[in-house]
Amino acid sequence: MSQLETAATTPAAQGAELSIPQLIADMGRRARAAAALLTAAAPAAKNEALERAATLFEARREDIRRENAKDLASGRQRGLSDAMLDRLELTDARIQAMATALREVAALPDPVGELSHVRVRPNGLRLGKMRAPIGVVGIIYESRPNVTADAGALCLKSGNAVILRGGSEALHSNKVLAALMAEATGAAGLPQDAIQLVPTTDRAAVGELLRADKFVDIIIPRGGKSLIQRIMDESRIPVIKHLDGNCSVYVDEFADLAMAETILVNSKTHRYGVCNAAETLLVHEAVAGDFLPRAVAALAAKGVEIRGCARTRAIVPQGVVEATEEDWGEEYLAPIIAARIVDSFDDAVAFINHYGSHHTDVIVSKDYGRITAFTRRIDSACVHVNCSSRFSDGGEYGLGAEIGISTDKLHARGPMGLEELTTSKWVALGEGQIR
Amino acid sequence: MSQLETAATTPAAQGAELSIPQLIADMGRRARAAAALLTAAAPAAKNEALERAATLFEARREDIRRENAKDLASGRQRGLSDAMLDRLELTDARIQAMATALREVAALPDPVGELSHVRVRPNGLRLGKMRAPIGVVGIIYESRPNVTADAGALCLKSGNAVILRGGSEALHSNKVLAALMAEATGAAGLPQDAIQLVPTTDRAAVGELLRADKFVDIIIPRGGKSLIQRIMDESRIPVIKHLDGNCSVYVDEFADLAMAETILVNSKTHRYGVCNAAETLLVHEAVAGDFLPRAVAALAAKGVEIRGCARTRAIVPQGVVEATEEDWGEEYLAPIIAARIVDSFDDAVAFINHYGSHHTDVIVSKDYGRITAFTRRIDSACVHVNCSSRFSDGGEYGLGAEIGISTDKLHARGPMGLEELTTSKWVALGEGQIR
Repeated sequence: MSQLETAATTPAAQGAELSIPQLIADMGRRARAAAALLTAAAPAAKNEALERAATLFEARREDIRRENAKDLASGRQRGLSDAMLDRLELTDARIQAMATALREVAALPDPVGELSHVRVRPNGLRLGKMRAPIGVVGIIYESRPNVTADAGALCLKSGNAVILRGGSEALHSNKVLAALMAEATGAAGLPQDAIQLVPTTDRAAVGELLRADKFVDIIIPRGGKSLIQRIMDESRIPVIKHLDGNCSVYVDEFADLAMAETILVNSKTHRYGVCNAAETLLVHEAVAGDFLPRAVAALAAKGVEIRGCARTRAIVPQGVVEATEEDWGEEYLAPIIAARIVDSFDDAVAFINHYGSHHTDVIVSKDYGRITAFTRRIDSACVHVNCSSRFSDGGEYGLGAEIGISTDKLHARGPMGLEELTTSKWVALGEGQIR
Repeated sequence: MSQLETAATTPAAQGAELSIPQLIADMGRRARAAAALLTAAAPAAKNEALERAATLFEARREDIRRENAKDLASGRQRGLSDAMLDRLELTDARIQAMATALREVAALPDPVGELSHVRVRPNGLRLGKMRAPIGVVGIIYESRPNVTADAGALCLKSGNAVILRGGSEALHSNKVLAALMAEATGAAGLPQDAIQLVPTTDRAAVGELLRADKFVDIIIPRGGKSLIQRIMDESRIPVIKHLDGNCSVYVDEFADLAMAETILVNSKTHRYGVCNAAETLLVHEAVAGDFLPRAVAALAAKGVEIRGCARTRAIVPQGVVEATEEDWGEEYLAPIIAARIVDSFDDAVAFINHYGSHHTDVIVSKDYGRITAFTRRIDSACVHVNCSSRFSDGGEYGLGAEIGISTDKLHARGPMGLEELTTSKWVALGEGQIR
């Protein structure tokens, strides 16, 4: 390690009580220094760190549960809901699942150093685009402590240093998990500072982190809309957003209606609280009379409330309540769906691009031209043809673990896995070429 | 075209005098509507538009020169320097060069619809990532009117609508060029609003454009540091920055010193005012005694001023002035270079990552391990081995035309061509699959 790098890893006031700006600057400097070493780390060393972390999670299960119990106790005292407490709890099974997830990330192909766009220029210069770590990633998240392990693992594997800022209700759990991961990273011969957790619940630390553009290259928020909105408003660092999924299923006039029913029911009812659940049903008017009665019956049998346009209600007066303008843009995350008849394929496309959230949209059709036009014209991260909206997921797409589903268009769009946690650099190999 | 799209293309107050916010909102709505049509435009139609624009440039050369003469006259009146006036002037040769550039963009492969990451999942789902236009691109630039043609062409070819905001001194020239391109686009059956120019020199229009996050997906600034800084501070839209190039040439202890001299001289002196010119020379101490005297002599013969560290000056007392701390971070864009001896390879890497601008950095070495480590550890958009820094350029890399060289790490890094003006969407083709 060079003098410059050594200097960077020495904290200004180790052990002393730091102010929030000092704390974040110190963490940022350490993260930068760690990133400089991680960028050329051997894949085997990164995998060893992840394997060691998995083993530590298993070996120190009691420590993890003891720290988690502190969070649960203070959560009960603060009156967290049963659902919140359940999300917070680290059972033996969940600790085991975190260890397994770490081993799965270790088993994924290493993205760093991968070459693309390889070419030889007329002057003999050999060129290619090489995947490289981004540098320092800031992750701001709520609630579930397993994000600490998952996000830490994905960042380490992709060669990035990470600064984690979890929810205050999970501070003790997050601290012990991050500490074990840092310990494992050090034991594998990599910089411990590769994985750091902001060790305070002070909300000022979030603002400070969002201003630390000298130290942090990208912010990835995971949480509710208000958290993401705050981050977008305050951040001086590029943010990859994971916003809502107002996903549509469009049943074309050339659809197989039995397939359409199966896909609609699965897209809506497989899980309600997820961003890739269907929230809107669009039906071409040519098949509305045939399709809507069976679709409404199938959804109603699952306990789904249907909010329809006037024409939908004219066809199925029973069991369809009146939709308002708000319904077309709503992400219910609940057993509710908005239903609307469209005059044409073009109207379906325009409706989805206007009211949808550009996450995942489905067409059910047998017509080649319609399918081709839908995939080209729908402006969404995931465009699905004759299959459930529920497949838009890093695991289902075969990307391995994901850090979220980006609803942004730049840098990363859709499920965000290891590749999306990297940037690239052009590498030119010459033998003395000049211009 | 659907009702929703038709509505969007009807300006609120066509012909009436619009306020700046109304003007930008109207342009934004038109751009969005154009983008919705462009996204599925046939490659042949886009190419026809570019060919027609090239022909129009040639046929209307007199119109272009007349409008350009207005800019030149008011530029002289406002006391623009001769260099500025020269940059502004559209000679017959330059108009011909713009037409040729349009035809070259037409001849490039169309990036839209290209598939990558193609796979078949165990359930039979066929998946791939499809390149798609970003949507609406905002380009804010200074001076040279040819940017109007180049940027407009690259955006159109990549399926994006573009809102151009050029420098006030080139308003008449930019207006006629943008109008001819819009005319050609309409004649090819594509929306005229695909290429729009902000038709006012009011600076408030820039601020309004930077806040138009509902209509504009990405801002690309081209110009001086103060312009880019203002845009970064004000923009609510993601910005791809094109900042300075403080590029280094590192001469390793295992360098071929004759090759090192050739590469150094070319990197520094081939052109001075460009972002990929070398601004810093680093020499490993083991070869400093051999290399520095010949390097200084070769640079001095070209009229380059050398600002060296104390050790450099000890070796070559004549002709090397004392460097200050500021010199290590300076982008001279002039016949000046900073020179420094480093103790080790690690120090060279740390120095470049600390003081450089992460644009283009060069190693000259015969050692395989050093070269490998340099390409991995240097955190720059372009890492060159044994060749001039001057090759970091879209044309030299074989990407065709470029819209700039991004010094950002996210979305696009290095020369930014057609591919970097696109995003992607996942397309899943199923036969009824559900979860």
